[in-house]
Amino acid sequence: MSTSKIGYAQTHPVFGNREANLEKVKSIVTSNTDADLLVFPELGTSGYEYATRSEIARVAEPLKDGVTSRLLLELAKTHDTILIIGYPELHEDEIYNSAMLVEPDGTIHNYRKLHLFSREQNLFDPGDAEPPVIETRIGCIGMMICFDWVFPETARLLGLKGAQLIAHPSNLVLQYCQKAMYARSVENRVFSITCNRIGTEKSSDRSLTFTGASQILSPKGEVLCNAPSDEEHVAIVEVNLTDADNKWITPENSIFEDRRIDHYGRLLKELDVKNNL
Amino acid sequence: MSTSKIGYAQTHPVFGNREANLEKVKSIVTSNTDADLLVFPELGTSGYEYATRSEIARVAEPLKDGVTSRLLLELAKTHDTILIIGYPELHEDEIYNSAMLVEPDGTIHNYRKLHLFSREQNLFDPGDAEPPVIETRIGCIGMMICFDWVFPETARLLGLKGAQLIAHPSNLVLQYCQKAMYARSVENRVFSITCNRIGTEKSSDRSLTFTGASQILSPKGEVLCNAPSDEEHVAIVEVNLTDADNKWITPENSIFEDRRIDHYGRLLKELDVKNNL
Repeated sequence: MSTSKIGYAQTHPVFGNREANLEKVKSIVTSNTDADLLVFPELGTSGYEYATRSEIARVAEPLKDGVTSRLLLELAKTHDTILIIGYPELHEDEIYNSAMLVEPDGTIHNYRKLHLFSREQNLFDPGDAEPPVIETRIGCIGMMICFDWVFPETARLLGLKGAQLIAHPSNLVLQYCQKAMYARSVENRVFSITCNRIGTEKSSDRSLTFTGASQILSPKGEVLCNAPSDEEHVAIVEVNLTDADNKWITPENSIFEDRRIDHYGRLLKELDVKNNL
Repeated sequence: MSTSKIGYAQTHPVFGNREANLEKVKSIVTSNTDADLLVFPELGTSGYEYATRSEIARVAEPLKDGVTSRLLLELAKTHDTILIIGYPELHEDEIYNSAMLVEPDGTIHNYRKLHLFSREQNLFDPGDAEPPVIETRIGCIGMMICFDWVFPETARLLGLKGAQLIAHPSNLVLQYCQKAMYARSVENRVFSITCNRIGTEKSSDRSLTFTGASQILSPKGEVLCNAPSDEEHVAIVEVNLTDADNKWITPENSIFEDRRIDHYGRLLKELDVKNNL
């Protein structure tokens, strides 16, 4: 069985300066040419703390023929690496908090964040489709973005759709995610790469510090590598993604086949009166 | 807002000796009369490592008018405490891995484990109904048993049904659960009591060591108390169960209301060809 080199690039994006941020991406990709996959943070092209929709519109771009996808396609082809980065996506009149996955063969995929965090609701349209799992030459890669982690449904969908690895570009500010991703990996028996950013961004009434601590976990929840909370950090580990195909947590228990879906109906029902929040 | 004293009793059940095990239960309840709720382990009346269905049938009993429920009803009433314990349930020709919840007012509730672990499949019938949430005088208590934890659907159902606290009698032998319960608490913003057992049981071809480390977690994943891995341990903490009613992880994000259930359909579909396990 063949192995793959998968990694994250925990960066400190410069607010509003796409040119500088893409220069950093280029520099990291060209100095890590052994990687088969590199994941960059959510909104890695733009920075995070935009005050208004019109302000973020100025750094948004289309998936196809955008400045970012053109550069990433070139880098992916030249260095034979799959690349993932978060960016503000302009699509007709809509703006999404999206992530693109670009392959060396020139194909390009997209995911629009389903669960918008906090004031992102004022900036972005919510994603309009199930999170994707993409069959790449190294294996099946599922995509989710940052706050999607808190909803177990997201990673579960990706697992059920065959993801061997969950790529998870993030801009985390709360303390929960890195610790909770243990369960996401174990319950779905998948690899995960949470690529967070570092730094602080301020707006008129608040200051956000991003928590770094990017990490790669195995299907058994082992930490294969992780980053400091306050420094840029690139790490690449060699793994066998087919390890994620073994869903047997005991010789008698498959974490997928043992699901009792006949009894799970309420998962898709509207909430109870009791939860009249 | 009023508080409740909730606890676990991590015990070392004697294999096949219900009388000794119930004596221990009685001793613990009578020396912890300040508790509003005490959770005992899965199969706390019987021990775990039965070889055959007929062997466990000898220690199985009905929910109503069984030796265990009669004692627990008496203890609950006398000491004004809600009690939960796992037991092998005999119901007509069926045997379930069940847990009962007994209230001081004489009411009694039952849950039949949905997800059977390893060789339990040779001993028990699988549970036949959604896990329950019971409105008690201290708050809404959801019930799941041991291996149910690995399926995020179980705790999610309990959360959506209004559980403020998940009572989780267990006989854990793997290393994952205690760490993963962090996510179960945080993703549903509920309290959880994982009551594990200790000790080793041997059968003709294997030896199982139970991992102890019972714990009570807050809706934010804080460890309110926990037990050693190899000693009996009773702990009671005072909490405000209504803390679990706040599902707002940010001022703009409710972990329940923000679910995008229109995109979650695959959670209830049969598995993909890709997952042809």
